[in-house]
Amino acid sequence: MPISYITRRERFNAAHRLFREELSDEENYNIYGKCSHPNWHGHNFELFVTVKGDIDKKIGYVTNLTNISKLIRELIIDKIDHKNINLDVDFMQGKIASTENLAVAFWEVLIQPIEDLGVKLHCVKIQETENNYVEYYGE
Amino acid sequence: MPISYITRRERFNAAHRLFREELSDEENYNIYGKCSHPNWHGHNFELFVTVKGDIDKKIGYVTNLTNISKLIRELIIDKIDHKNINLDVDFMQGKIASTENLAVAFWEVLIQPIEDLGVKLHCVKIQETENNYVEYYGE
Amino acid sequence: MPISYITRRERFNAAHRLFREELSDEENYNIYGKCSHPNWHGHNFELFVTVKGDIDKKIGYVTNLTNISKLIRELIIDKIDHKNINLDVDFMQGKIASTENLAVAFWEVLIQPIEDLGVKLHCVKIQETENNYVEYYGE
Amino acid sequence: MPISYITRRERFNAAHRLFREELSDEENYNIYGKCSHPNWHGHNFELFVTVKGDIDKKIGYVTNLTNISKLIRELIIDKIDHKNINLDVDFMQGKIASTENLAVAFWEVLIQPIEDLGVKLHCVKIQETENNYVEYYGE
Amino acid sequence: MPISYITRRERFNAAHRLFREELSDEENYNIYGKCSHPNWHGHNFELFVTVKGDIDKKIGYVTNLTNISKLIRELIIDKIDHKNINLDVDFMQGKIASTENLAVAFWEVLIQPIEDLGVKLHCVKIQETENNYVEYYGE
Amino acid sequence: MPISYITRRERFNAAHRLFREELSDEENYNIYGKCSHPNWHGHNFELFVTVKGDIDKKIGYVTNLTNISKLIRELIIDKIDHKNINLDVDFMQGKIASTENLAVAFWEVLIQPIEDLGVKLHCVKIQETENNYVEYYGE
Repeated sequence: MPISYITRRERFNAAHRLFREELSDEENYNIYGKCSHPNWHGHNFELFVTVKGDIDKKIGYVTNLTNISKLIRELIIDKIDHKNINLDVDFMQGKIASTENLAVAFWEVLIQPIEDLGVKLHCVKIQETENNYVEYYGE
Repeated sequence: MPISYITRRERFNAAHRLFREELSDEENYNIYGKCSHPNWHGHNFELFVTVKGDIDKKIGYVTNLTNISKLIRELIIDKIDHKNINLDVDFMQGKIASTENLAVAFWEVLIQPIEDLGVKLHCVKIQETENNYVEYYGE
Repeated sequence: MPISYITRRERFNAAHRLFREELSDEENYNIYGKCSHPNWHGHNFELFVTVKGDIDKKIGYVTNLTNISKLIRELIIDKIDHKNINLDVDFMQGKIASTENLAVAFWEVLIQPIEDLGVKLHCVKIQETENNYVEYYGE
Repeated sequence: MPISYITRRERFNAAHRLFREELSDEENYNIYGKCSHPNWHGHNFELFVTVKGDIDKKIGYVTNLTNISKLIRELIIDKIDHKNINLDVDFMQGKIASTENLAVAFWEVLIQPIEDLGVKLHCVKIQETENNYVEYYGE
Repeated sequence: MPISYITRRERFNAAHRLFREELSDEENYNIYGKCSHPNWHGHNFELFVTVKGDIDKKIGYVTNLTNISKLIRELIIDKIDHKNINLDVDFMQGKIASTENLAVAFWEVLIQPIEDLGVKLHCVKIQETENNYVEYYGE
Repeated sequence: MPISYITRRERFNAAHRLFREELSDEENYNIYGKCSHPNWHGHNFELFVTVKGDIDKKIGYVTNLTNISKLIRELIIDKIDHKNINLDVDFMQGKIASTENLAVAFWEVLIQPIEDLGVKLHCVKIQETENNYVEYYGE
């Protein structure tokens, strides 16, 4: 049975700030530069979720992408879109709001529900700007 | 002498919130929906500035785009990139931080300095997401 | 009061065929080339609707883009997305399914409902492939 | 000798329908949703073919991309562009016209001719919409 | 009869240099910056040609875009793609190879042949990089 | 500690020519086609550098992308942007200016300085046109 990788893109617009609570604004600026601006800034984030599985011979699908999309929207987009990543998102509490940490957190949120659909989570990719993106493969 | 339109794109990532101070959060939500979220959200904004002028026969340019780019960066990008549009940007104080108002404010900031370069400001366009943008022609 | 142009993008995926019923397949091929293929072909169409209006001083908006989006989805996208333009779309019956005619038909569908929102329809643009698009301004 | 991966993009616009012949329209709708619409719909598909090989020291190429492009056009694009994937494409007969199956079929068509050029087929990727794509690595 | 604007995109990859023959390299650098580099540099140029005309009621087209595409390829792309704009392109001889001048030259090459197809040339747009483009309307 | 891949895009516009010095123009044309044009041609190249590393628990970063960006600009972009790859770039001397060779050369330039930042170089990808790109993983 051929194994295929399928990817779904979802988008969210959010505010965030990179900083460590125990440091002063100046110390944070030395580490995170303009990303540490105390009054927040924001992005149009693009999220690419890749799952992997056998192509079901009868259906012709690895899995119905609509279900993947619904999962991502319910578990992630509805909690983070038009929100403040540092202040509003439960699974980011106590974490630095970097794109790296975001990708790991999304992975942890999605891994079990996607397995419950009978497929395997392969990659979480987050594009923060046209010039940078992060990928996490659960390693 | 042929008249040409030249456009320069610059980008900025910023947080904002759409709301009217005199209204409650609930009232603002009824008008602005999720864009009124009190803890802010943000975007990767793309700014397109179009200027218009005769092509200088000797130089072959309408004007050096590097100068247009410098103007936009000094007068706009440096003030708004990785900032909070409502809280940090002098020329947006007392205004609702909508893309429409942003475009008008950018126009007012740029109109004279661009004229001083010997060309005419034609259009300020701001792309907020892949699904919506605003254009202002000084009308 | 400053006048602003705001644009909303919506997308639809549809099948179509360019042909005139009264002609043979060969004659249609001579006019429309591979776009006349009798078994249909299809595209990811991108629709850009631009409206024009005064910026409401109190609200900071020309109009709520969410309303424009809803109108386009109800009146156009729900009828044409994942459909056959020639066979399934009421407002294209008896017309050649060209992008030009599609743009005019969309204009006619949208002109009154958008006016009812208090703004003016300015342009309907349809991008058929990365290499061609059509614009209609109601002229 | 360094090993390099080179990718060529080709495009095709086609109609298709996801359905199983033995099921009713209603049953197909329950499985495939709007993608099962009986009158077809369509897409601008983007096909990315990645091959892998040693960089030829004398030529500086893995292989001439023009040859890869020609192969893809002759063996795939000419058969599927501006066509109906279900009705017109020989290598899709008797198969469900899903993007997953399309990727596997393309792989089978390309594997030998690309090997005959002295390089190895690495990946077939098909982008169906801006929100979803499929990758097949011959596993 | 409704009037429609249709646009065709074509692409070319070319080398050029911005300089005036009568000036020294240093003087040219002061005017054109790094674009005056004596050993040339280059771009992936995108050319958008917009024509305007009545929609033919019988055909449903303003004009067959394939004919527009053929014209652009024969009269422009074949002469400039994978060439040096300063050295190889007949209609750029004796001119500064700026994007502005390129747009005007393209207009002059296309205006009559496009009129011979029964439509009106409306705009020549050249995108030089993702951050700048030029438009010429024959004014 | 989770391992993350982070990618930075940088751009450069350059001229080049594919040819072997010991061959005639006609022989080069037979191998490299229009890419061997003696008067050069050029591209807007996009360079994607992917590095891999543990996410620093205290900082939340694999590494500061600003440092990666600085490295790429100093070691590559400053030497190649608005230049002639064959004539002007020290690390391409004596090599055929193919995208494959360019990717390997960039890898060799970056491997040590990126390791000095405490992360591992994973991939150098160069997009030459919208239809082709090359990836090198140090194999």
